[in-house]
Amino acid sequence: MNPTSVGGGKLVDMIEKVPVILIANDDGITAPGIRALVDAVKGLGRIVVVAPDSPQSGMGHAITIDKPLRLNKVDIFDGVESWQCSGTPADCVKLARDKILHDKPDICFSGINHGANHSINVIYSGTMSVAMEAAIEGIPSVGFSSLDYKFDTDFTVARKVVRDIAKRMLAQKLPEHILLNVNIPVVTEKSFKGLKICRQAYAKWDEQFDHRQDPRGNDYYWMVGKFVNMDTESGTDVEALKQGYASVVPVTIDFTDKKVKSWLEQEWKM
Amino acid sequence: MNPTSVGGGKLVDMIEKVPVILIANDDGITAPGIRALVDAVKGLGRIVVVAPDSPQSGMGHAITIDKPLRLNKVDIFDGVESWQCSGTPADCVKLARDKILHDKPDICFSGINHGANHSINVIYSGTMSVAMEAAIEGIPSVGFSSLDYKFDTDFTVARKVVRDIAKRMLAQKLPEHILLNVNIPVVTEKSFKGLKICRQAYAKWDEQFDHRQDPRGNDYYWMVGKFVNMDTESGTDVEALKQGYASVVPVTIDFTDKKVKSWLEQEWKM
Repeated sequence: MNPTSVGGGKLVDMIEKVPVILIANDDGITAPGIRALVDAVKGLGRIVVVAPDSPQSGMGHAITIDKPLRLNKVDIFDGVESWQCSGTPADCVKLARDKILHDKPDICFSGINHGANHSINVIYSGTMSVAMEAAIEGIPSVGFSSLDYKFDTDFTVARKVVRDIAKRMLAQKLPEHILLNVNIPVVTEKSFKGLKICRQAYAKWDEQFDHRQDPRGNDYYWMVGKFVNMDTESGTDVEALKQGYASVVPVTIDFTDKKVKSWLEQEWKM
Repeated sequence: MNPTSVGGGKLVDMIEKVPVILIANDDGITAPGIRALVDAVKGLGRIVVVAPDSPQSGMGHAITIDKPLRLNKVDIFDGVESWQCSGTPADCVKLARDKILHDKPDICFSGINHGANHSINVIYSGTMSVAMEAAIEGIPSVGFSSLDYKFDTDFTVARKVVRDIAKRMLAQKLPEHILLNVNIPVVTEKSFKGLKICRQAYAKWDEQFDHRQDPRGNDYYWMVGKFVNMDTESGTDVEALKQGYASVVPVTIDFTDKKVKSWLEQEWKM
């Protein structure tokens, strides 16, 4: 079998063992984005969905250690094995492995998130924490996000991106402990330019807090953020998305800054 | 003024502007670790504490976007300006900047965490999310953790480490957008070997879930993890800690894997 030919054929028939595709998200199991993700990978393997029972946006890589977790089977994806979990996105991956799959899945996909997770959002995102948790375990994984926040987003382009990437990853394994951060622009099929391999843009959220008083006269604050891209060099995910590409950023789980490590070894006399 | 001489002198007298030191944590404002951190930097600048009003361990880089936040002044550190916040560790940094300091602090310290945050824990840790949030903003920052989980930990060595690092960072600014992950071993002052610059070990948590039933016969699960160090090469934080050093890992906020980026550009024909 020539693995490079897999993209064009019926994958399930071509490989010996049916691959297991674990699916999770952070918007919760009833979000349209996870339904689009399930649809996109149908026929490529055995799909198992384990997702939060309520929205978990902005959870970062939170895990639940001070509360017990609930895990219940549901049937909302036309017969696809599905479970809802009371925990965080990262909890879903851990529970799926230990209590449902009893083994590593072949790939783990997260999303499709309603809203961008490019650049610095990789740190805040519950969608990305699913993929990061899987990568720690050595499971090839991707977090998918659409730049369209709307509930009734058109996922046509996004579904194509997911299926394309799923086929590539089933045909050729990613290097170990790497996850992909994939963002999809708001474009029509016709104007979509394809995938682009990128680096994470240096960007940040400028937060301001909306200061209010409750009916008892006590102060409270709502976080209100404005996204600011500080990165003017080319090759970033933010740039690719603006040009109409889906951005693909390979993300490491080793956060050591090697350059600054050398700098510290020189500058900090011990 | 020769900045390299600062370590030995009275820092506040030697620089023009009193540096502002922001302190937060994830164990909550009443944890002994944050008190040890405040004690350790006394006299080095204007200290402002903004910390969660309840324990937030394992929160990762969670932020609060779906709930309003509370922020209340407290007086529990002998006159040091202190605020407790209803949000996550990352929220504390954002609120401190926008609503309390109205500017960037000179340095931001987090901890001292009760329990290790070396190796892969950088991803799960609320302590580290404080430092990461500060680094995104360009504030030199450190997350400090003691390997001793106990409430009545002896912070003598840890306080020395904090003060040493504070002096170094006030005398010479770290490269921008870098945070340090500092872990302190459980050793006596006499057997303590000093600081060691390290890389993040590849390690992970092997999770199992303790399966129980509630009084109504419904299943629930407690997360139970076992830490496994898979990294046998030298130079890691886990190794340094075993040898009696405090480990110092410079951490980046750019998670792009540059090697795999080149690999993808070659292998993924578009």
